[in-house]
Formats: sequence, structure tokens, C-alpha cells
Amino acid sequence: IDQTAVQHALARQDQLTKPPGSLGRLEELAVRLAGLQRTATPEVDPVRVLLFAADHGVAAEGVSRYPQDVTKQMVRNIANGGAGVAVMAKAVGAGLDIIELGLATGSEVVEGVRSEPLGPGSGNIAREPAMTPEQLARALDIGRDAVDRAVDAGVRLIIGGELGIANTTAAAALASALLDRAASEVVGPGTGLDSAGVNRKAEVVARALALHASEPRAPLEMLRRLGGFEIAALTGAYLRAAQRGVAMLIDGFIVSSAALAAVRLQPAARDWMLFSHRSAEPGHRLMMEALEADPLLDLGFRLGEATGACAAVPLLRLACAVHRDMATFDEAGVSNAC
Amino acid sequence: IDQTAVQHALARQDQLTKPPGSLGRLEELAVRLAGLQRTATPEVDPVRVLLFAADHGVAAEGVSRYPQDVTKQMVRNIANGGAGVAVMAKAVGAGLDIIELGLATGSEVVEGVRSEPLGPGSGNIAREPAMTPEQLARALDIGRDAVDRAVDAGVRLIIGGELGIANTTAAAALASALLDRAASEVVGPGTGLDSAGVNRKAEVVARALALHASEPRAPLEMLRRLGGFEIAALTGAYLRAAQRGVAMLIDGFIVSSAALAAVRLQPAARDWMLFSHRSAEPGHRLMMEALEADPLLDLGFRLGEATGACAAVPLLRLACAVHRDMATFDEAGVSNAC
Repeated sequence: IDQTAVQHALARQDQLTKPPGSLGRLEELAVRLAGLQRTATPEVDPVRVLLFAADHGVAAEGVSRYPQDVTKQMVRNIANGGAGVAVMAKAVGAGLDIIELGLATGSEVVEGVRSEPLGPGSGNIAREPAMTPEQLARALDIGRDAVDRAVDAGVRLIIGGELGIANTTAAAALASALLDRAASEVVGPGTGLDSAGVNRKAEVVARALALHASEPRAPLEMLRRLGGFEIAALTGAYLRAAQRGVAMLIDGFIVSSAALAAVRLQPAARDWMLFSHRSAEPGHRLMMEALEADPLLDLGFRLGEATGACAAVPLLRLACAVHRDMATFDEAGVSNAC
Repeated sequence: IDQTAVQHALARQDQLTKPPGSLGRLEELAVRLAGLQRTATPEVDPVRVLLFAADHGVAAEGVSRYPQDVTKQMVRNIANGGAGVAVMAKAVGAGLDIIELGLATGSEVVEGVRSEPLGPGSGNIAREPAMTPEQLARALDIGRDAVDRAVDAGVRLIIGGELGIANTTAAAALASALLDRAASEVVGPGTGLDSAGVNRKAEVVARALALHASEPRAPLEMLRRLGGFEIAALTGAYLRAAQRGVAMLIDGFIVSSAALAAVRLQPAARDWMLFSHRSAEPGHRLMMEALEADPLLDLGFRLGEATGACAAVPLLRLACAVHRDMATFDEAGVSNAC
């Protein structure tokens, strides 16, 4: 963060025709973006959602209310414009890059979907590592490449999104390991498990943690063993966005596990992250605390896909508009405070 | 609220390709708007901000950090596009109707401002009633007429906004009286008083409450004695929007005192109110509790003018877009929960 740009932005905010601080977090956002972008006039457009989809072997443990076919069906639904993220990205004027990294019933050609299969889904983390080292490296690369495509096209705000039946289980396992928390503290209902289902899921995550516990506690190895293709791709994307110097808006529970992994791998990546919303998934709070994040919205979302981040995009735009377009006391001939 | 439309909207939400309830408050908003508008496809556009500005005699008690001239200066600044509400209304695509009801240094002709002066500002509530019965009636009418202009032009969402040096003092006095709370429970720093200033302001409000306490406890009389021209106009506007059957999005502290007065006068008006944000002004919470309101945003705003409501407009639009445009499980060929 460029401290000169931050100081200039703070000084400008105090000259705008409003009581100092009276636009609260919108002011913070404008100042932060000014510092990140090293400019007096921060902007978030163009915005692009990078949506990574993949299946998870751990679905075999009965940890989701939805059959595994739904991952592939939802990839089509996103591409066709019918899914939550498709409607919301369009409504807020964000681009959408859909990347499929491996489906249980095989990849298929879908218009508007980039297919980069690493296998028929990640391994069942309750029995084996999620990925081979080669799959992990490839997933990180796929995330990195998606960011490069976006940044090369001029994108100023990167949003990571995800889709994959059973991926709250993988994200909970990864978060538990990274945070050194018990499975039961991090696991939640995901797409809508009842309490018996949550208990079963916590037991599966606990089994996965026990299975992989003797391994080196390096974040990258935790990601390989407990994550998933799309979670690793998101980690690679977040690391790359920070390297390229582009702000990211973080969505909910699953992408936050990837953001946490990225920050453990490269603490400076945290600077480039803005946090959009508090997920209704209980373990999200623990990740936000670890990342010292105070998300903008709290609307009870637990859909994932990047929908929470899409909902926060208009606030970032407003922050930039206020910073750029409001008149100063001098310009407007308005008396400042007595 | 049309319960048939509500039931249809709830049924549609459960058929959309997402776990039921996973878009939280966006789903609630869509269902609520469907019920209010008696339609399967609720919409909030066009949106219009009705911005009522007036001076307050109580400014003479030293309750604001800003000189009273600022009201007139800010009316110009809003009309010229430089104020917070002007920038934000434009950024979110809301129309703006600026109505001036009386300035201490006299009205003036400003392009884009409707001037309807009721006097050089309301009376000093610490010494006299804010308004004569005639001024109150005229202010209510001005608010009503602004809503009629909007609704006749097809507006589907009404936002009330306000401007007036010292109007947090009047709003605090009115809220204290309506809620039967001590001045010290409702008074806050407004545009930025220090703690000594807040104490002085609370003492002024307490004096106003004591002066007018022997009068009949009817809400309309409280509004006349303790409110102000713009607060009364807002009350009239809210009552009229409910009569015309148009949804309103309520901003922060000052307009909420008018919303509370409107609901005390006509409890059914509450049905038409959506609440945009939690003001940083401490007394706002008490009004939200009394109105059983759970505002959408909590961003530390304390600017007023309707800026908090403007920030919430994109969420209402998203709620409508999701409800209308997301595919159902059947349409998308996506398997529903096991």
C-alpha cells in the first residue's frame, strides 16, 4: 500500500462536503483502494469474477444434501445465465470467467466454460490426499493464468468464486488445519444439512484431519491434502492477484479457506484483499478473525459461487464515486465546521 | 401486503437453483416487494430521492459544529451535484427531487430546487413550538405532494432524505417524546460534537421535552412542537407513500424520527417501509427497535441526506433480479436436494 496515496486520499476525504468520517466504511474503502492503486482516483471497473468449479471425492462420504451430478449441472446453469452468480454478476456489471477443473462424470464442452480437467474430481480427503503434487501445481497455475488473463484485459477488481458439491467439507478441513481448530468448530450446514448431517460431516472432517495430521504442517501441503482443485486454483489466483497488484474482493466460506492459505503462503497477499460479506456458515467467522477482516455485508448469504462478493461490488463503486465526484468545501463554497 | 403474492414468491424462491434460503435477506426483500407490489416480478425502478431541506431555530442553542449558513450552502451543493446524496443518487441511478422549506437567511432561486418556504426555519424548540398548526399542515402537504409527483411519474421506490443544520437535535427530541425516553438516551454527536457538545445538546433536548411535556401526547402534536419543516414533510411523504401503495426505503436517524411519527399516526404505513442502514448515531437503534426494523447495511454512516438509503438501492435491485432471472431446478435441469 502506497502511504503517500493513502495520506492524499485521507486529506481529500476530510475536504469533501460532509462531516469527517460520516461515510464510514465507504471512506475507508476509497482510501484503501487509493493506496493500493497508487492513485487519487481509485476505480474498480472492470470487475471480473473467476469462477472455479470441480468435484470432490469426499462427496462419497454423504456430506451434502445434493447429488454430485449437481456440480456439472450447475456449471451449465452458470454458463446459461440461470445461476445466482450469473444473474448477480450480470446485474452488477461484472465479467464472468468460468473454469472447470474436473467433474466426476467427465468434462464436457459447454460454451462459455473453459475446461481444464485435472481428473474426475479431487481425492476423498477422508481416505487419501485431495491432490497429487502435480495436480496441485497445475491447479495453482490455472488460477494464476485466470488472473493474468483478467489483469492483461485491464481488470481492476478480481473476485474469486467456486462451485463443487461437498466443497464446504474440503474448505472446513483446510480451515481447521490452517487455524489449528477442531473440526466441530469449523464445520457447518453448508447447503443445508440438518444437525445429524453436520455431525456426520464433522466426523468426516475429523477423520481427514487425523489421516493427514502426521504430515508436515506447511500450508501448501495442507492445501494439497485437504483442499480441492477449485480451492487450489483460488489460492493460486489470490497469490497472483497480489503479485500483479490488483485488488481482490473475497466472497464467503470456501474462497476464504483459499484466501487464508494464500496469506499463510505469502502474508503480503492480505494487503490486496477486501472482504465482502459474512457468511451464514459458522466457521467463516474464525477465518475472518484470523485474516483480521471485517466484511462489508451481513445478509445471511450461504450460497457461495461469489454471490456475496457480487452484492458488495456496488459499495466499492460508490466509494470510488464519492471520493472522485463529491465537491470539497472550497469548491462548493460551503463553510467547514466551527 | 398481498399474501397470495407472498406465497407465490416464497414458492418461486424455493424452486430457484440454490439451496433454500441461501440468499438470506435478498430473498426476504424479493418476497416482501412481491407482496407489496402484488406481482410475481417486483421491481424498484424508477427510484426517486425526495430531499427536504430546512433550517431549525434550535441551531441558536449551539447544538451543531456547523454554522447555520451551511443549510443553504448545502442546498446549492446538492443541486450542483457535489454533495454526498447527489453523487450517490446519480451513481445508483435514482432521481432526486430537492425541496427547500425555509432557510434562515431567506430562500433563493436555485436551479433544480423547489422552494416552498414556510418561514426562515422552524421555531427554537427549547423555547417555543417548532411550527404553527398552519406550518405543520403545509409541511405535511408538501411531503404528500412530492410523493404524488413521484408516483404519478411511475416511481416504484421512494427514498426520503433531509438536510438542515441542527436537525439531529429536533429528531432526537421528537424520538425521545415518541419513544418516551430520556434525552440522554437518544441524543448523539450528530455531525461530530465532542462529549461536552453532546451533553449540551442533551440538555437542550431535555429542556425542549420539559417545555412541551404538558401538552397532549398525540404524535401529531409532538411533531408540531419538536420536529421541523423537513421532518414534518417527510412524515407527510411517508404517510402518502403508504396510501399510494409504494414501497419506501428509510435512511438514517432524522428520517427515522419522521418514519416513527408516521407509523404512530398510521400503523399500517409500517408495511411499506424497508430499512436501509444502521446509523452510527446511537439513538437510531432505539427507533429501529420500536419500528421492529432490521436495517440491511451497517457501514458506520452518519451523514444523512439519504446517503445510507442510496447505498442500499443496489441490494434491492439485486433481490429483484435474482427473483426474476434465476433459473428454476426444472428449467436448468439441475437435481434438487436428496
